[in-house]
Amino acid sequence: MAHTIHLHDPADPRLDDFRNLSTADRRPDRPGGRGFVIAEGTVVVRRLLESAYPVRALLGVQRRIEELTAELAPVDVPAYVTPAQTMADVVGFHLNRGVLAVADRAPQPHAGALIARARTLAVLESVGDHENLGSLFRNAAALGIDGVLLGPGCADPLYRRSVRVSMGNVLRVPFARLEPWPDGLGLLREHGFRVAALTPRPGSVSLREVRELDKVALLVGSEGPGLTEEALAAADLAVRIPMADGVDSLNVATAAAVAFYELGGAR
Amino acid sequence: MAHTIHLHDPADPRLDDFRNLSTADRRPDRPGGRGFVIAEGTVVVRRLLESAYPVRALLGVQRRIEELTAELAPVDVPAYVTPAQTMADVVGFHLNRGVLAVADRAPQPHAGALIARARTLAVLESVGDHENLGSLFRNAAALGIDGVLLGPGCADPLYRRSVRVSMGNVLRVPFARLEPWPDGLGLLREHGFRVAALTPRPGSVSLREVRELDKVALLVGSEGPGLTEEALAAADLAVRIPMADGVDSLNVATAAAVAFYELGGAR
Repeated sequence: MAHTIHLHDPADPRLDDFRNLSTADRRPDRPGGRGFVIAEGTVVVRRLLESAYPVRALLGVQRRIEELTAELAPVDVPAYVTPAQTMADVVGFHLNRGVLAVADRAPQPHAGALIARARTLAVLESVGDHENLGSLFRNAAALGIDGVLLGPGCADPLYRRSVRVSMGNVLRVPFARLEPWPDGLGLLREHGFRVAALTPRPGSVSLREVRELDKVALLVGSEGPGLTEEALAAADLAVRIPMADGVDSLNVATAAAVAFYELGGAR
Repeated sequence: MAHTIHLHDPADPRLDDFRNLSTADRRPDRPGGRGFVIAEGTVVVRRLLESAYPVRALLGVQRRIEELTAELAPVDVPAYVTPAQTMADVVGFHLNRGVLAVADRAPQPHAGALIARARTLAVLESVGDHENLGSLFRNAAALGIDGVLLGPGCADPLYRRSVRVSMGNVLRVPFARLEPWPDGLGLLREHGFRVAALTPRPGSVSLREVRELDKVALLVGSEGPGLTEEALAAADLAVRIPMADGVDSLNVATAAAVAFYELGGAR
């Protein structure tokens, strides 16, 4: 059971994990130079508590910590309760959501293990924007994608902003690095997947024509330049979203959501 | 033809339309207390130049104004060219995109005129977030929605942040206020539309089951509470996006994109 500890002094060393959150993603003193996994707000804190990441501590105002009583019952971590101003002094800005949790990072599954138990996957190349990446995970969770494979150039899903924008879904949807690139895509084919590149290029087929496909890995590129030639050449087919004439493509996470809707497990 | 004028002094009164952009949406001295229509970046400036809004002036660095030479040829407005630092001093922050245009607001069409020439429409209730609203217009343009009707509580599509997030599509997709609410929805039925409320409620039918519908008005509510009881009761049917179990709904603009994909004119 979590033990509640009331603190008032923002300089208290027990609050060090929560200090200066706006720079908390870079921690040269920690393994890999990466910070803790940080969850903000009750929804995301709940998802962190349900996840495999080892939670270290919570920090919140009284009301928010109380809202989490049931979820904290089986967890043996300190829950620091402070006034809102103390919390703001520690994290470096005023945090509307009123509660935070920090966890250690944990080893990710290998791509092979993730592929073996999936029916529908997303494979990302150079999705370097943390908010787009977070939105992609949110959409993947909602629309029944079983996991995300990260090719080169992708941002870190556990970066604080990605966690927040994903609504904590980076903590629920499993992900793994796929290497080498793009040859690692062969691993998908070995498991019976078809790799479908999402691209507006001429020659791609409408998503509507492939909605009956089973075991699909949807390959998605970065928002501006899209997929590389190498990735496109390594895919089994190219699919597109029918678009109105003369309009730029959708945001990458929105385009992926449309494809997840057609191909994902929530069909 | 636009006339290029080189300026260096940020205090030059000819640059007053561009001053302090971060507060430019509130202009008590202008009609309705609202600011100009402001376009940022070459893509959005192009869309403003193509629109019916009366452009007043452009401000940009040399390279960006040159990129717009063809589009500026038929337009009789001043194009102020300044160094990047002068531009930053005028607008109040450093603007990566290097070019701006301002236009006067213009009367919007009446809902009836918009409905009369449309096949697929979006109808929004209480979409008060400027970024969500901008994203909705971007998705509407990409996926062939003919227009947007704004119910009560919606943000202003011509607010600077909405214009930017929409990639200028608020300047292309026509919109109109729908009043009174929700009785104004009757106007849609008079024109042969069916009003489909997008809602995860029990009893709603999957979008897949209504993809053959012609003349649809998709009714979309705000991200948190969703549509009001009054709006739901006034709709002809309720439709939902099939979601994976236990996951929150999608962002409102993303959910709308999925529905636009099924129901919009880009099918």
